[in-house]
Amino acid sequence: MSRRNAPKSVVKRLPVYLRILDSLIRRDVEIISSRVLSEETGFTAEQIRKDLAYFGAFGTRGTGYNTSYLREKLLRIIGLDRQTKIIVVGFGHLGKALTRYNVSKNPYVDIIGVFDINPEELHTDIPDLKIHSMEMLPEVILADQVKVAMITVPADVAQSVVDLLVDNGVTAILNFAPTKINVPEHVYVHNADLTIELQSLIYYSLEDEKQPEPE
Amino acid sequence: MSRRNAPKSVVKRLPVYLRILDSLIRRDVEIISSRVLSEETGFTAEQIRKDLAYFGAFGTRGTGYNTSYLREKLLRIIGLDRQTKIIVVGFGHLGKALTRYNVSKNPYVDIIGVFDINPEELHTDIPDLKIHSMEMLPEVILADQVKVAMITVPADVAQSVVDLLVDNGVTAILNFAPTKINVPEHVYVHNADLTIELQSLIYYSLEDEKQPEPE
Repeated sequence: MSRRNAPKSVVKRLPVYLRILDSLIRRDVEIISSRVLSEETGFTAEQIRKDLAYFGAFGTRGTGYNTSYLREKLLRIIGLDRQTKIIVVGFGHLGKALTRYNVSKNPYVDIIGVFDINPEELHTDIPDLKIHSMEMLPEVILADQVKVAMITVPADVAQSVVDLLVDNGVTAILNFAPTKINVPEHVYVHNADLTIELQSLIYYSLEDEKQPEPE
Repeated sequence: MSRRNAPKSVVKRLPVYLRILDSLIRRDVEIISSRVLSEETGFTAEQIRKDLAYFGAFGTRGTGYNTSYLREKLLRIIGLDRQTKIIVVGFGHLGKALTRYNVSKNPYVDIIGVFDINPEELHTDIPDLKIHSMEMLPEVILADQVKVAMITVPADVAQSVVDLLVDNGVTAILNFAPTKINVPEHVYVHNADLTIELQSLIYYSLEDEKQPEPE
């Protein structure tokens, strides 16, 4: 099966399962039912069973999943069983924030360098982080065989940055630039949207207002 | 029905549907089937029908959904039919990036102010944005009846910031601080995780490597 055959929505849930498993293992939970996994994630138990079934049979009927075993399998399926080398293009506020966030919270990735048009004007307190000029991009990608990039550049230069990345072998791009970008068939782009979570949060802020109010 | 009865996973998909509808309306599409909505979102058609059925009957069997009508209904359900006033606490790189992102891309929210422990050292090029000291927090929240806050403060002060927000009437918090926070039953917290999207992207970067290689 090609990796692209699993629906995107399923693939997006895999890291959510992983995060829950990490937290369960820290609490010494060894076995978990899909019902409890459902309570922790908000997805239905049926959905969870269907999602995992795309990749194999990991649970025991009537018992549940072994947390460590399932975690190890998920790491391998997602591709997090070894560190992935990534680069960040654009080192403004968002690039800095995302780089710092992933350096401290995402053990599965290794940010090998960041790129900006003004590297000499930039500084960072992230240890060992290399800030390169855009001209260095082909050389760095080639040296480390980088396949994954995160871009936080302005909308009007996003397409040319993406073209440069693709020409040099990048095949997966997380795009924070607020614009649509075009890529060849073999390249996967995910357009990140930092507004979505705030919008669904607003739903919950309204709870009281929608109730009838006492006179 | 209490707003909390719809599963969280359903509520989180509503803004995704909204985004697709916005884009369809911009392209003058008037009617859309759940099959096409499925292709655009990556969720199954069945899932989409089930999600929307929580809130009412919006489509016509065999025809589909009227895009403008469904958009209007979704705006009202989520609570985006009027602008929501929000505040941002913590104005470092992440706070600045998120504020700018929402000011430019999220017409449904009005960021009425940001807070930081060092307001005098901060500056911003976002027009009309007020930067306050933490001491001003109760006054500003009260004046504008703010219910929604985004926090991007360091982990070790997150709980005390949240306590202050809750004491002053905030009921929905988007937490970017990398720590768990405790709130009373009536307050909704969503822990944002900027590492998840990058992790699911890595899945797609591996496609070629997992294929057998020609000799």
